[in-house]
Order: sequence, then C-alpha cells, then structure tokens
Amino acid sequence: MEQERDQERSMDISLKDLSKQLEDFAKVRNWEKYHSPRNLLLAMVGEVGELSEIFQWRGEVDKGLPNWEESDKEHLGEELSDVLLYLIRLADICGIDLGDAAAKKILKNSIKYPEPKTKREFI
Amino acid sequence: MEQERDQERSMDISLKDLSKQLEDFAKVRNWEKYHSPRNLLLAMVGEVGELSEIFQWRGEVDKGLPNWEESDKEHLGEELSDVLLYLIRLADICGIDLGDAAAKKILKNSIKYPEPKTKREFI
Amino acid sequence: MEQERDQERSMDISLKDLSKQLEDFAKVRNWEKYHSPRNLLLAMVGEVGELSEIFQWRGEVDKGLPNWEESDKEHLGEELSDVLLYLIRLADICGIDLGDAAAKKILKNSIKYPEPKTKREFI
Amino acid sequence: MEQERDQERSMDISLKDLSKQLEDFAKVRNWEKYHSPRNLLLAMVGEVGELSEIFQWRGEVDKGLPNWEESDKEHLGEELSDVLLYLIRLADICGIDLGDAAAKKILKNSIKYPEPKTKREFI
Repeated sequence: MEQERDQERSMDISLKDLSKQLEDFAKVRNWEKYHSPRNLLLAMVGEVGELSEIFQWRGEVDKGLPNWEESDKEHLGEELSDVLLYLIRLADICGIDLGDAAAKKILKNSIKYPEPKTKREFI
Repeated sequence: MEQERDQERSMDISLKDLSKQLEDFAKVRNWEKYHSPRNLLLAMVGEVGELSEIFQWRGEVDKGLPNWEESDKEHLGEELSDVLLYLIRLADICGIDLGDAAAKKILKNSIKYPEPKTKREFI
Repeated sequence: MEQERDQERSMDISLKDLSKQLEDFAKVRNWEKYHSPRNLLLAMVGEVGELSEIFQWRGEVDKGLPNWEESDKEHLGEELSDVLLYLIRLADICGIDLGDAAAKKILKNSIKYPEPKTKREFI
Repeated sequence: MEQERDQERSMDISLKDLSKQLEDFAKVRNWEKYHSPRNLLLAMVGEVGELSEIFQWRGEVDKGLPNWEESDKEHLGEELSDVLLYLIRLADICGIDLGDAAAKKILKNSIKYPEPKTKREFI
C-alpha cells in the first residue's frame, strides 16, 4: 500500500520536485550566476516562441492532435517542458511558491467566475 | 503518519492535481468548447505578456526581489500562475503528459550538458 | 506635383519618420532613461501579449476580419501599433537601422526561397 | 533634385513599401493560403522568441550595444526584421492600415501623456 502510493507519486511529479531538480542542475553546473529574474523571463519567452512555431502554419488544431506524427508530439512535449522548467525556475528565483500561488489563483478564479446555478441543479 | 503525509502532499501540488482541477473548472462552466490548442496557446501568450509587463521598466532585478512591495510580489505570483495554468491546460488538451515530458527533458538536458568533472571531484 | 508627392508621403509613413517621432516623444517627457534595450524588449513582449488576447478565444479568424465589430478592429490597430512602436524604438536604441535590415532580410529570404520556375513561366 | 529625393526615399523605406513587397513575395510563392491572421500571429510570436533569445543570458544591455560582436548585431537586425515583417503582413491580412494606426496611436499617447510644462518653457 505504501509502495503503491510511492509508485503513484513517482508518476505524479510535483512543482516542488521539479524546482528542486532545477536548482541542483544549475548549482552543479555553476549556472546560478546566469539565473537572474529577467534572464530567466527572456529565456522563457524564447521557449514560448519555439512552442508557437510548432503551431504556426497548421491552421486550427483539434484536441488530442489527431493526425500528428509521433515525432511532432514528442517535439511538442519538449517545448511545453522548456516553458514549464523556465517558469518554475523563474518563480523560484523570485522567491514565489508557484504551487501555492496557483492554488490561490484557481480559488480566486472560482469566485470571479462562479459555477452556473442551473447547470449544477441538474448534476 | 498518514495524515502528515497528506499534509505534506497538500503543500506540494502536482501537475496532475492542477490538470484535474482545471478540467473540472472548465467542465462545470461549459468552457470546454473554447479550449482548443491554439486558443489556449494564445491565451498563454497573453499571460506571458502580462508577466513581462511586471518586469518591463525595472532594469535588472535581483534574485528574491528585494525592495519589491508585497502587493507587487502577489501580482507576480498571479501572473506566473496564469501562465502555468494555461500551459498545463494546453498540454492536457493536446494529450501530452506534461510531468512525464518535463522529467524526460531534464534527463535529456543532463546528458546534453554533463556535470563538469572537476567540480564533482571536490564535492 | 511637389505637393501631391508630399501628400502621398504623408499617407505613407516611413520607419525613419516613426523612429524620429518616438525619439522626440521620449526626449520631451524625459523618458530616455527608461529606454534600455531589455526594458523596451519586455515592453514589446507585453504588447504582443495584448495583441494575442484579441485573438485568443476566436478560433480561426478569416482574412479581412469579416463580422468583427468596428471597435474590435480599432482595438486591433492600436495593439499592432504598440508592438510596432516598441519594435522601432528597440531597434533605434540598439543602433540598428530597421528599414535597412528589413530590406536585406527580404532579399535574403528571396534567395533562401527562390520563386518557383513553373509559376513564373505563366505570368 | 528629384533624383536626390528618390535617393532619400530609397533609404527611408515606408510601411506600405514593405507591405507591398511582402504581398508580392507570398503571391509568387503561392504562400497566401498559409497567411491567415492567427498563423501569422503565431509566426510573429515565434520570431519574438528568437529575438528574446539574443538577449536572454546577457544581463542588462547598454544602449548602442557596446562590445557586441558585429555578427551578433547583424543577427539582431535579422530577428528585429522578422518580427517587423510578420507584423506588417498580419496587419495587411487583417485589413488594417498599420502606418495610419501607428500615427493615430502616437497622437493618442501624446494626449494621454502630455508634455511636462516646466520642461517646455525652457526649450
């Protein structure tokens, strides 16, 4: 049972796990000196650009990416990851707890956009 | 012990937790029809813009954001979260397991940029 | 004739005209101290975000924007302009002649992507 | 005199000149079918990413780019141009007169941010 739980967790990576891995990665390579907030922000914008390039000439794309080559999906996973990793590192370097901030933002959004009543009545 | 563990987990939010929350959020509000890959990508670019605006006139910013107002830090946490939430939702709608992709990307990066030997000898 | 020509020119604004106007605008307001390359770049990214927000929930958009409200088109013109103005100012502050660079880039592209022969035979 | 004027104009490229060149470029290569508003917008975001990559690890950059290699400046000119060309093409495909919109935006900005009086008294 404990083991299953660990198994489950290993497949379900947390923001803190990633943040810690990125910190170690930078430390070992002596890259911390490059990781200022605006450097990381611009690096992230660079990755957003690469992500956009994957979608740029395709016209509207359907959910689940039917008919995409497996290699294109893999490339997409890498670019999504690059954005994520710089975003997590940026938050960390700024001293922001991203998981905590995200949870708060979802709560704030749920108040800003309340569930439609009529819909809930039927559920 | 179980309780502590749950406590720990609640502070350490996973990508899958967030993905599930965003899916429910959209479903209940009947927003799924808007969540196509390119709509979500452009929404994310919009949030990257708002994030950049926070940093645009500040010149170089130091790690940890010394001298920033508490309200500016909170605003930053919100914009970082907005980018994260659209990124997670985009991955989900594309059928990409973002946590898995991120773990693979870190591994790939560690091969591309191996740890400097001399450094490790001293650790 | 001279007058017509001036008339024509006034409707056909050049990159140098805009660059000069922006320089004067900043000088008079004592804003030059804020116009460092990375500040202007991030300001431009902010405007690209606002431009993207206009398109984010619309699905595919047709050429010429049929069915768009006049106010939405006006808003679009403003956001396109904001990107342009920061881009011109960024080039200027970096000491890059943007018009010259653009002309060279078009030439380079025309060599990289030569005109298809069969097509030209029929023109 | 006429000749000098043409000379001057040839060095001072207009938005309309560039727009016309881009239209011809696309037409001859049968690329018009790819030039939908959102495709061009995403292509522009891709180029903004490449532009950001030039600045990402440099820390604060001084005006005029002192100490930059000539090849880096040339690369910068190309990326600035790529953003410009997609921006102009996007405006054109949307039926927006970008030069006109930019002139209006500068006027609007001059009303929003009036010249400081004390400053003008001394000029």
